[in-house]
Amino acid sequence: MVIRNARLMTCDPERPGLGMIDRGAVVMEGARIVWVGPDNEAPAGEATVINADGRLVTPGLVDCHTHAIFAGDRAGEFAMRAAGKGYLEIAEAGGGINATLGPTRGAGHAKLLGILMTRLERMRDGGTTSVEVKSGYDLTTEGELALLRTVKTVAALESPRVVPTLLAHLVPPERKADRDVFVREICEQWIPRAAAEQLATSVDVWCDTGAFTVDETRAIIGAAKAAAFGVRGHVGQLGDVGAAELMAEAGALSVDHVELISDAAIAALARAGTVAVMLPGACVQLRLPVPPVEKLRRAGVAMAVATDLNPGTSYCETLPIQMWLATTHYGMTVEEAWLGVTRVAARALRVEAGALVAGARADCVIWSCERPEEVPYRYGTNLVSRVICGGA
Amino acid sequence: MVIRNARLMTCDPERPGLGMIDRGAVVMEGARIVWVGPDNEAPAGEATVINADGRLVTPGLVDCHTHAIFAGDRAGEFAMRAAGKGYLEIAEAGGGINATLGPTRGAGHAKLLGILMTRLERMRDGGTTSVEVKSGYDLTTEGELALLRTVKTVAALESPRVVPTLLAHLVPPERKADRDVFVREICEQWIPRAAAEQLATSVDVWCDTGAFTVDETRAIIGAAKAAAFGVRGHVGQLGDVGAAELMAEAGALSVDHVELISDAAIAALARAGTVAVMLPGACVQLRLPVPPVEKLRRAGVAMAVATDLNPGTSYCETLPIQMWLATTHYGMTVEEAWLGVTRVAARALRVEAGALVAGARADCVIWSCERPEEVPYRYGTNLVSRVICGGA
Repeated sequence: MVIRNARLMTCDPERPGLGMIDRGAVVMEGARIVWVGPDNEAPAGEATVINADGRLVTPGLVDCHTHAIFAGDRAGEFAMRAAGKGYLEIAEAGGGINATLGPTRGAGHAKLLGILMTRLERMRDGGTTSVEVKSGYDLTTEGELALLRTVKTVAALESPRVVPTLLAHLVPPERKADRDVFVREICEQWIPRAAAEQLATSVDVWCDTGAFTVDETRAIIGAAKAAAFGVRGHVGQLGDVGAAELMAEAGALSVDHVELISDAAIAALARAGTVAVMLPGACVQLRLPVPPVEKLRRAGVAMAVATDLNPGTSYCETLPIQMWLATTHYGMTVEEAWLGVTRVAARALRVEAGALVAGARADCVIWSCERPEEVPYRYGTNLVSRVICGGA
Repeated sequence: MVIRNARLMTCDPERPGLGMIDRGAVVMEGARIVWVGPDNEAPAGEATVINADGRLVTPGLVDCHTHAIFAGDRAGEFAMRAAGKGYLEIAEAGGGINATLGPTRGAGHAKLLGILMTRLERMRDGGTTSVEVKSGYDLTTEGELALLRTVKTVAALESPRVVPTLLAHLVPPERKADRDVFVREICEQWIPRAAAEQLATSVDVWCDTGAFTVDETRAIIGAAKAAAFGVRGHVGQLGDVGAAELMAEAGALSVDHVELISDAAIAALARAGTVAVMLPGACVQLRLPVPPVEKLRRAGVAMAVATDLNPGTSYCETLPIQMWLATTHYGMTVEEAWLGVTRVAARALRVEAGALVAGARADCVIWSCERPEEVPYRYGTNLVSRVICGGA
C-alpha cells in the first residue's frame, strides 16, 4: 500500500520540527512502513495507491495515559460537582472511586473485554493507534491481575496497539486501616506476579496528597525495578509532596499531571530525561492550576499530551480536543502538542511509534485538512478521514 | 413517526427542571410534533416507530451564536498565538480580521453557499437543529447584504433551521479614518435595506474595547429598533465599557460573552429579561477570565451556551464540547448547560425551538447514552445517534 500526494508530517527525529514533507509518500508492506520521502522519489512497484490529494498525513496518535479499563461511570458525580456539591457529599452519595470499584469488580472478563474494545474502537476513530492502558479500578491482588489479563487479551489484537501498565492507584477505603499490608501486597504479590505473567511493561504510582506517600511510593518503585519494570508516576495533581523528585531519582519514564511541581523537580526531570505528560482535560475539569509549561520548556523537559481517559476526572477518548486545550489553556505550541501525541508520547511509553519512518509499524492517519495546526484549531470536529493501524 | 421507549428530556417549561419523562414517547406528523408524554399513554395509530431502547431523546440543539459564514481560516494565526506571538506580530503577518475579510470578500455566493452548507451539515451531525448565523466578515454595504442573501438561500432549506442576524462586527482597517461615515452607512444603508429584504431578524453590535463605542452602538441600536429588528450585543469580552447596561436599556434579546460585566449591569439584565450567552470556547482560547456565573444565576439572568463558531477565536461546530466547558470551566450546572443549548438559546433567538412539546417543529436528537449528564461528561466523543430535523 502506498499513500501518495500527502502533506506528510513524519515526526522523524532526523528532520527538523514536525518533519514535514510537503508532497510526500509513504510505502507500506504488510504491517510495516518500508519507505518515506518526497512523492516524486517514491519507489515504483505494484501497490494499492491511496491518493491523499494534498491532505495532511501524520503518524497514528499515541495516547500515553489512559485508565481505559473500568465498568460503570461517574456521570452522576459529574453532575453533582457541576452543581457545586463538595467532595464529602459526593462520597456519601456513593461517588468517588467506589462508584467505579464496585461495577469493575463485579463485571468479569467478558464484560470488561467488550467495554475496553468499544473504547479502543472509538479511540481509533479519533486517530489513536497506540494506547497505554492502566489497571487500577479493582484494587485487590487477584482483581488487578485479572484486569491486566483482560488488557493482554485485547492487546493481542493490536488494533490499536495497547501498552499495559500496572497502576498502584490508591489505597481503597477498606484497606485504609492496614495500608502497610496493602502496600506490601503490591510489592510482593501484584508486581512479581504481573512480571511473571508479562502482564505489563511499567508500574505507575499515584504519589500525591491523598494517594500513596513518598515512602510507600519508594517501596513500590523498588519492587518495580527489581522486576525490571519501567516506572512512571501520577504526580503533583493535588499537592507537591516531592513525588516528581522521587520519580526523577528513579529514572522514571514519565511524570504525569504536574500541575504542582517545584523548580528543583523540573531541573531533576530534565537531567533524568523523564517525560512530563500533560493532561489538560482533567486539569480543566478539576479547575486545577495550569502546569508550568514555560519552565518545563526552558529546562528541556519533553512534554507529552494525553486524554487521561478515566471515569472520575476526564471521560475523553480522543486526543485532538486535548491538543486544543494544550495549545490554548496550557500555552504549548502547535509543534509541541503534535510531538506530544506522537513521538514524545511514544518515548514516554518506550515503544517504537509516533513517527513515519522506514521500519516503523504502519500506523498513520489521513486527515480531512491540510495543515497540522488545523487539528487543534478546529476543536469539536473530528477531522480524521482514515486511520491505518498496522497496515490495515 | 413515533419515537417510543425514550428517556425523554422535553425541556417543556410546564414541567420542572429538564422536563424528564423516564419512559416517554414523541409523536410527529410531518414537520410537527403532535403529542409528547409517557410511552404507555401514547395515542395508537399507524406510524413508523423508532424504538429508542431507553436511550436519551432531547430537543434538537439550538446554537444561538455563530459566525458560520466566512471563507478562509486563521489556523496560521492560531499557531502563532500558541507560539506566544503578540497581536501586532500576528497582524503584521496578515492575521486578525483581515485574514478572513479578504477571502470572504473574494469568495462569491456559490462558494460561500457551499462552505456554509458544509458547516451546517457538521453542526447537524453534532445534534444542532437551529443555528443563528451572523454576517460580519465583509464589512462593505453590498458585501454584508450579499452575505445575508446567501444565508437566506440556505435558510430556505430548513435543515437545520437558520436564524439570520445582521452583525455590526467592527470598523475595518480601511474605514478607521472615516468611522463616523461607516457607522452612518450601517444605520442608513445596511439596516434599512436588510429590513426591506427581510434578510435578518435581529441586529448584533460588538460594543467593546477596540470595537464599536457606546455612542456608536446607541446609534446602531436606534436604527435597528426603527426597522423593528431585535437587538443583541457582543459585550464585555475585552473590556467593560458599559455595553451590557446599554443592551439592557435597549431590551436586548441577548448579551454575549460577558466575561467582564459589572454587578449593576447584571441587575439591569435581570430586569430586562435579557439572556446572557456563554461562549466558553472563545474564553478558553483567548485565556479570558471566567464570567460571573454565580452572580448571573443569583440575579436570575437566564444563561445560554453557544459555540461562537468563528475563524479567529473558536472554530467549533458542535455544542457538546461547549457544554463540558460550561459545566467544568464555567461552573454551570448540567441542567443550566442543557437549557442553555435548548430552551434558553431559543429564547435568545426568539424562535420556537428547544422544547419537545405538541405544536413545535419536529426537531430532536436520539443519543447513544441514557442520562442528560453523560453528554457533557463524555466530552470528546460524539454521542449523537440520530438527528431528526423538521420531521426528517
